[in-house]
Amino acid sequence: MTTTANVTTETSPGFSPLQAASRDHLWMHFSRMAPLQERPARVIDHAEGVYLYDDKGQKILDGLSGLFVVQAGHGREELAAAAAEQAKKLAFFPNWGMTTEPVIRLAERLAHEAPGTLNRVFFTSGGGEAVESAWKVAKQYFKLTGKPMKHKVISRMSAYHGTTQGALAITGLPAMKQAFEPLTPGGFRAANTDFYRAPEHGDDPVAFGLWAANRIEEAILQEGPDTVAAVVLEPVQNSGGCFTPPPGYFQRVREICDTYDVLLVSDEVICAFGRHGTTFACEKFGYEPDIITCAKGMSSGYGPIGAMIANERVMAPFLEGKNFFPHGYTFGGHPVSAAISLVNLDIFEREGLNQRVLDNEGALGSTLGKLLDLPIVGDVRGDGYFWGIELVKDKASKQTFDAAEREFLIKQYLPDALMDNGLYCRPDDRVNPVIQVAPPLISGQAEFDEMEQILRKTLEDVSALL
Amino acid sequence: MTTTANVTTETSPGFSPLQAASRDHLWMHFSRMAPLQERPARVIDHAEGVYLYDDKGQKILDGLSGLFVVQAGHGREELAAAAAEQAKKLAFFPNWGMTTEPVIRLAERLAHEAPGTLNRVFFTSGGGEAVESAWKVAKQYFKLTGKPMKHKVISRMSAYHGTTQGALAITGLPAMKQAFEPLTPGGFRAANTDFYRAPEHGDDPVAFGLWAANRIEEAILQEGPDTVAAVVLEPVQNSGGCFTPPPGYFQRVREICDTYDVLLVSDEVICAFGRHGTTFACEKFGYEPDIITCAKGMSSGYGPIGAMIANERVMAPFLEGKNFFPHGYTFGGHPVSAAISLVNLDIFEREGLNQRVLDNEGALGSTLGKLLDLPIVGDVRGDGYFWGIELVKDKASKQTFDAAEREFLIKQYLPDALMDNGLYCRPDDRVNPVIQVAPPLISGQAEFDEMEQILRKTLEDVSALL
Repeated sequence: MTTTANVTTETSPGFSPLQAASRDHLWMHFSRMAPLQERPARVIDHAEGVYLYDDKGQKILDGLSGLFVVQAGHGREELAAAAAEQAKKLAFFPNWGMTTEPVIRLAERLAHEAPGTLNRVFFTSGGGEAVESAWKVAKQYFKLTGKPMKHKVISRMSAYHGTTQGALAITGLPAMKQAFEPLTPGGFRAANTDFYRAPEHGDDPVAFGLWAANRIEEAILQEGPDTVAAVVLEPVQNSGGCFTPPPGYFQRVREICDTYDVLLVSDEVICAFGRHGTTFACEKFGYEPDIITCAKGMSSGYGPIGAMIANERVMAPFLEGKNFFPHGYTFGGHPVSAAISLVNLDIFEREGLNQRVLDNEGALGSTLGKLLDLPIVGDVRGDGYFWGIELVKDKASKQTFDAAEREFLIKQYLPDALMDNGLYCRPDDRVNPVIQVAPPLISGQAEFDEMEQILRKTLEDVSALL
Repeated sequence: MTTTANVTTETSPGFSPLQAASRDHLWMHFSRMAPLQERPARVIDHAEGVYLYDDKGQKILDGLSGLFVVQAGHGREELAAAAAEQAKKLAFFPNWGMTTEPVIRLAERLAHEAPGTLNRVFFTSGGGEAVESAWKVAKQYFKLTGKPMKHKVISRMSAYHGTTQGALAITGLPAMKQAFEPLTPGGFRAANTDFYRAPEHGDDPVAFGLWAANRIEEAILQEGPDTVAAVVLEPVQNSGGCFTPPPGYFQRVREICDTYDVLLVSDEVICAFGRHGTTFACEKFGYEPDIITCAKGMSSGYGPIGAMIANERVMAPFLEGKNFFPHGYTFGGHPVSAAISLVNLDIFEREGLNQRVLDNEGALGSTLGKLLDLPIVGDVRGDGYFWGIELVKDKASKQTFDAAEREFLIKQYLPDALMDNGLYCRPDDRVNPVIQVAPPLISGQAEFDEMEQILRKTLEDVSALL
């Protein structure tokens, strides 16, 4: 740390000492840093239930569960107590040949919750590491079972699967990748399930779902089935704004994977742990993958943890002789995060959070659906407690905004205006402009109404400026 | 979860219910799983100070700090309390445009501890993610500054830098990579600083250091300086067994990086936070990198966290206009892990842990050095509280063991025997057979003696079997 004025933390007009330290030292994620040099960052100070409170004392409804994470809500004393208890008893030990009790118990519990023979749990620190683990295990699985050329992955256009350079190669967002190319070879894309902008069968979800699933078969055939190891899909695709699977879609995808001997990976980093009213979202949508990747909601975010859950078929060759999966993470399956997760799953059971989502998802959808009376709202779509609101310039033609308008809407206006109006959610334009909401699972009609009202006011205000 | 007998958790002879659950559901890291189906895994139950206690009540000296992690020792109530306090106040909020107080304070503190203008802290969940971040930022930095072809990384033979498919491409261990090829393109290797097996200048550390540094220059020239973005090196290389930098080595590497406009990344995931008696190990070895990657010891492992710390030169283009680093991790810079880390750094200061390592490293080295009287011990090397003991078949010729002997030594005998004799450390044969020790920084002569005695007995026992 030098002591020259330009890099030493000091207060400036409008900056508290804390905000000045943030300006000078904290490189934020996915964030333009120039504006953060000019004006103070908002600091979230504390949170309780469904509400965040910033450093100025403003109360803000958490409409995004932190980042699709805080399923059980903020300020849960029993999760804090679980963390302290395990940290005092045994804060850290790795899972390299030996292990710890909370990690075993969590593995057992996840295996019981997972469908079919998905019994084998490989822990990670988070979602991206789980996706890396899934791809790596798929590559090695086929080398161990006599199909060594199978190594590629098919994923979907605009899907987000992580930022490490394997997971990023599976991600379907060119703008997130281009500065870092070449990435891990073998990532190929197929169509997603954006029914609102369906290029075909826009009037028939079943026909559209079949069409979209067949695009995956097409990609497998284009690349050569003997070279494709896995298809990686989110149950409901996040990036682009909550693209739900049409009826029959996943059943056809499963069939395609079986036909070409390709592993089906259900990337449930966002969708698992009640986001759709079931522990794993594949159950909600009626399919059985070979691998589930999950993270975020497992601990309700109180401690970093993720997992790659494999079925017995995938595990089998790794149980033979001296075979092993030369892979791992120091913090993967952290005892404190595992202990937190166990208590979090207790809360799920005790409070019936999954059933709560199933009971209320329709009400959330219809409450948000009221926004369709605004000219700027083109589509409201989603499932469970995971919804996207697509903003359009012209509703009749579905015309989207141009680059300058998107810059104003998504980058300049909406993030601050929504927060100032009391709602934290996610304006995004990785594809078309959308606002995503994913409230804590403890939310109900009062929170749905509050979200709808703040969104309505904010969208009316910005519409007047466009 | 199916209910057929072969996958349902049930007790078996010799397996407790917990161990049976581990057998059936926990896929361990870097572990052969076949033996774990046959005999129960050891479960670490609790820990206090420098001692682990397993589920049978055995007391085991932690000679590895968990996994180079638990610097301040086990069972620290104030770290547990810090976790609980922050988890209750605000357990989770991401660092995407907004942030939280403990994350800012930790960024400021790390920046103050880091040398030169390394003022900008990008948080991750752990070490591999930090290495991914460093490579990605190096790629983008050169695209933003007019040298878009610079994207490759030079690292060293047998060095370990992580398992995600970017970090793994930087890792220099073919056996860890071969099942997953092709990895992210651009990883190239140069010689490491294994002075014990120096191919040249084995009698002159300074000449050897210059030779080894010049191998990095050679690799840059072989690949083309216009295509090389970074050199990634650990201060003391872990894999292979604690290869220390010869005098002048890093000074020459810094000079080479400056000559060819290549960023120098100091991968301090193991070496930072007092492992060598300084907060960052580059200080100990007298060089200033452009980027530091770190993790493990930051929180003493009580919560998963890591960081990529960049200097102002690397940050500069990202502060301009709409430029940004499209990269991040949900759990990167977790508020609970950050709050723990701040208290951990308080403990470092209050108890003088860095100075303690500087005061005792010589005694640790000389205590372990006594083992050189055993015929099986070829070399004892290291720095700070990070030492490697290389095992040889013939000390005079430095002949190493063959594959069958290594299988017996490293895979079959030593891990269990050391634990049974009361010492947790790391037998490894990623390169030549070594035993690594890296005790918690609170350790002193009593623990050094206990380690030496257990190692001596165990090595005498195994020597009689070879």
